[in-house]
Amino acid sequence: MILVNGKPEDTLSLGDRAIHYGDGLFETIAVEHGLPLAWDDHMQRLQKSCLQLGIDCPDPASLLLETVEIAGDRELLVVKIIISRGSGGRGYTPAEKGTTGRIVLAYDWPDYPKEFAQVGIEAAISSIRLGHNPLLAGLKHLNRLEQVLLSRELAAKDKPETLVMDIDNQVIEGSKSNLFLVSNQKVMTPALDQAGVEGVIRNALLKIADELLMERQIGRFSLDDVFNADEVFFCNSIAGLWPVRRIENTEFALGPVSLKLQQVLQEKKLIT
Amino acid sequence: MILVNGKPEDTLSLGDRAIHYGDGLFETIAVEHGLPLAWDDHMQRLQKSCLQLGIDCPDPASLLLETVEIAGDRELLVVKIIISRGSGGRGYTPAEKGTTGRIVLAYDWPDYPKEFAQVGIEAAISSIRLGHNPLLAGLKHLNRLEQVLLSRELAAKDKPETLVMDIDNQVIEGSKSNLFLVSNQKVMTPALDQAGVEGVIRNALLKIADELLMERQIGRFSLDDVFNADEVFFCNSIAGLWPVRRIENTEFALGPVSLKLQQVLQEKKLIT
Repeated sequence: MILVNGKPEDTLSLGDRAIHYGDGLFETIAVEHGLPLAWDDHMQRLQKSCLQLGIDCPDPASLLLETVEIAGDRELLVVKIIISRGSGGRGYTPAEKGTTGRIVLAYDWPDYPKEFAQVGIEAAISSIRLGHNPLLAGLKHLNRLEQVLLSRELAAKDKPETLVMDIDNQVIEGSKSNLFLVSNQKVMTPALDQAGVEGVIRNALLKIADELLMERQIGRFSLDDVFNADEVFFCNSIAGLWPVRRIENTEFALGPVSLKLQQVLQEKKLIT
Repeated sequence: MILVNGKPEDTLSLGDRAIHYGDGLFETIAVEHGLPLAWDDHMQRLQKSCLQLGIDCPDPASLLLETVEIAGDRELLVVKIIISRGSGGRGYTPAEKGTTGRIVLAYDWPDYPKEFAQVGIEAAISSIRLGHNPLLAGLKHLNRLEQVLLSRELAAKDKPETLVMDIDNQVIEGSKSNLFLVSNQKVMTPALDQAGVEGVIRNALLKIADELLMERQIGRFSLDDVFNADEVFFCNSIAGLWPVRRIENTEFALGPVSLKLQQVLQEKKLIT
């Protein structure tokens, strides 16, 4: 089932600006027994991003009701919320008065092997470089052609995630997740002011590091920094936290910091 | 009327990747008395762009039939063709077998005053900077949030077009058109290897300059280069060629090169 502005629909008006320009945002949320995980974090990001794009943000209460309705009594599923600026305007120019659209979609929980989170993954390295776009960097907007091309490349490699760099060869993230490095107990993640998506779990982990009085750093990191890290992991709202055990010929420990952070995320009910 | 894969529709399946990721391309075509202008140029760009994104390009013959059908006997209109990678796949990862969708939409001819082409316009300067994305630069893809934000800014200024720079402060294009400078009879236009859309009329003008044995250059230009040019103009498939008469306090001549190029575009039936 899909809800468009609260009503069951299978289709979207062809005037919608999501189709024409990717003029909108989205959130991908794990819903467990009717409870959307990290809901407040998702809504805070959505409201902040809408403000940045000049889109009238829908009332989170409506989105919550629609998310719960679409989840029904399923044990575990993925709910995707797409916010579109709606229809109208003239060409690229949006209408003065917004007609924000809400699309709430339900997806089966992905069948990632449990080992990915428990013993870690082997990651690929993408040959594709993310562009620099300070205007849109960090936002989970609907302009996702880069991720489509990255994921298309990854699909040929039979690995669950890939390390993605930007045009300056700084590591940024995975194809669908954020990246963390741990060295000497310090928790590090790439700055996303030029490229990348500021994931809800990434931001939660930075707060958790503070709460645990761990040293942490948002910075610029090279592939060498990754290879020299003690621990490496990817994270997102659905996969949770995937330790990286191997990238090319470099092996990483299934380290205590990754496992501790994963445990706290679960205890805080931010991931399953 | 809108045709989706040849059939009249008002809506698009909510599984379509154009909605979720902007996973597609588009062409905006002037159609005069049933004749799509610069048709071969549009189709060549579309085929090249599809190849670059790994999208199966629809048969241009089908697109031509659909364009002519939707144009009917209208004297002059805009036909927009959206090509989507279609539905399917898993998250960002496209399906192995493409299900390319064709969306053909008819729009009223915009009511630009004739003076824009005949005596020129006053252009704004955008405060928004285009990102750098060598992977996608030049393509007329569906990831157009930058243009939405540019156009939103321009709408508040009561000017028909705006000069847009990239994050290195190089001038790139307008919000909906390409930019040319003319100095000492030399025709110049910004390189679009980092940002911008390679317009059909831009590329036609470069060929025309060759045919007319005019010196021409694709290069990197600053705002100062614009202010120091003898002539400045914007161009696209619908507006045609708009000479720029003024930017802030700098006035430009309605110059002979701009008018000559405009005339050749009309004689070749590339613009109305």
